[in-house]
Amino acid sequence: MLFQYNWQVREEWLQWCRGISASELTKERAGGMGSFRLTLLHIIDVEYSWVRAYMGKLDIEIDLASYYTIDEIEDLSNKLQQEYREYLSEWTHDIENQMVYASWLNQSFTKGEIIRHIIVHEIHHIGQLSIWAREMEMKPVSANFIDRGLADK
Amino acid sequence: MLFQYNWQVREEWLQWCRGISASELTKERAGGMGSFRLTLLHIIDVEYSWVRAYMGKLDIEIDLASYYTIDEIEDLSNKLQQEYREYLSEWTHDIENQMVYASWLNQSFTKGEIIRHIIVHEIHHIGQLSIWAREMEMKPVSANFIDRGLADK
Repeated sequence: MLFQYNWQVREEWLQWCRGISASELTKERAGGMGSFRLTLLHIIDVEYSWVRAYMGKLDIEIDLASYYTIDEIEDLSNKLQQEYREYLSEWTHDIENQMVYASWLNQSFTKGEIIRHIIVHEIHHIGQLSIWAREMEMKPVSANFIDRGLADK
Repeated sequence: MLFQYNWQVREEWLQWCRGISASELTKERAGGMGSFRLTLLHIIDVEYSWVRAYMGKLDIEIDLASYYTIDEIEDLSNKLQQEYREYLSEWTHDIENQMVYASWLNQSFTKGEIIRHIIVHEIHHIGQLSIWAREMEMKPVSANFIDRGLADK
């Protein structure tokens, strides 16, 4: 359910970014990954690496330089989600303590840890975007979990 | 487990704030609740309101003006957590769909929704603090969920 929340909020931020110029999208800012563009790509990239590890697959690096426009970033996000949307929806509590190896850290974690790590990671970076929005005197996307129709999903 | 994460990160931010001056703590900034002090108090206040509703208790407003120093904010946070730490640890999946009334919104939600709303709310605001830290050229608290010893709690 928190994945659905994150993906809904991410989609709203992608739409939000259509209301700013390409130079604002890529402008260097303090914190996060340094810009709206790089922070959004970082969210997508990190989710992909962890989900691949979670699925027992090898890590695939994403070439961030290939994704400049919101259309490109959104397509990437949708394409990757399709790869694992169904797989993740099969989560049950018995797999909580199954171990997973993260090659880029040369370390193992439980599946429960990884799922929570991915969830927290995106919410944290989205909070950062909201500050940049306010600094541009624009209204950020709502971060509320309630009132998104996610109660019974 | 995500509550434990949030409380651990909150405590680290409270300690982090001991490394900045009182004027930096209360300085007005764009976004969040407008300052480190008010954003930290807002996290505590919102958690308290929702947890009270979750417990079927009446909302108690916190007088934010009474808490100025980090010691005062930390004492408040610890005192309130003691009120419901044990209660929240008794979460089971059968209560997911129990309804709860939030008086200040005059609206009802499931307990599952409320729990996730509280969790997301804190992570989001903590992400905001990390931008302000970077703007002050200081290293923020790590937001990582992994490597906190939370796997088997």
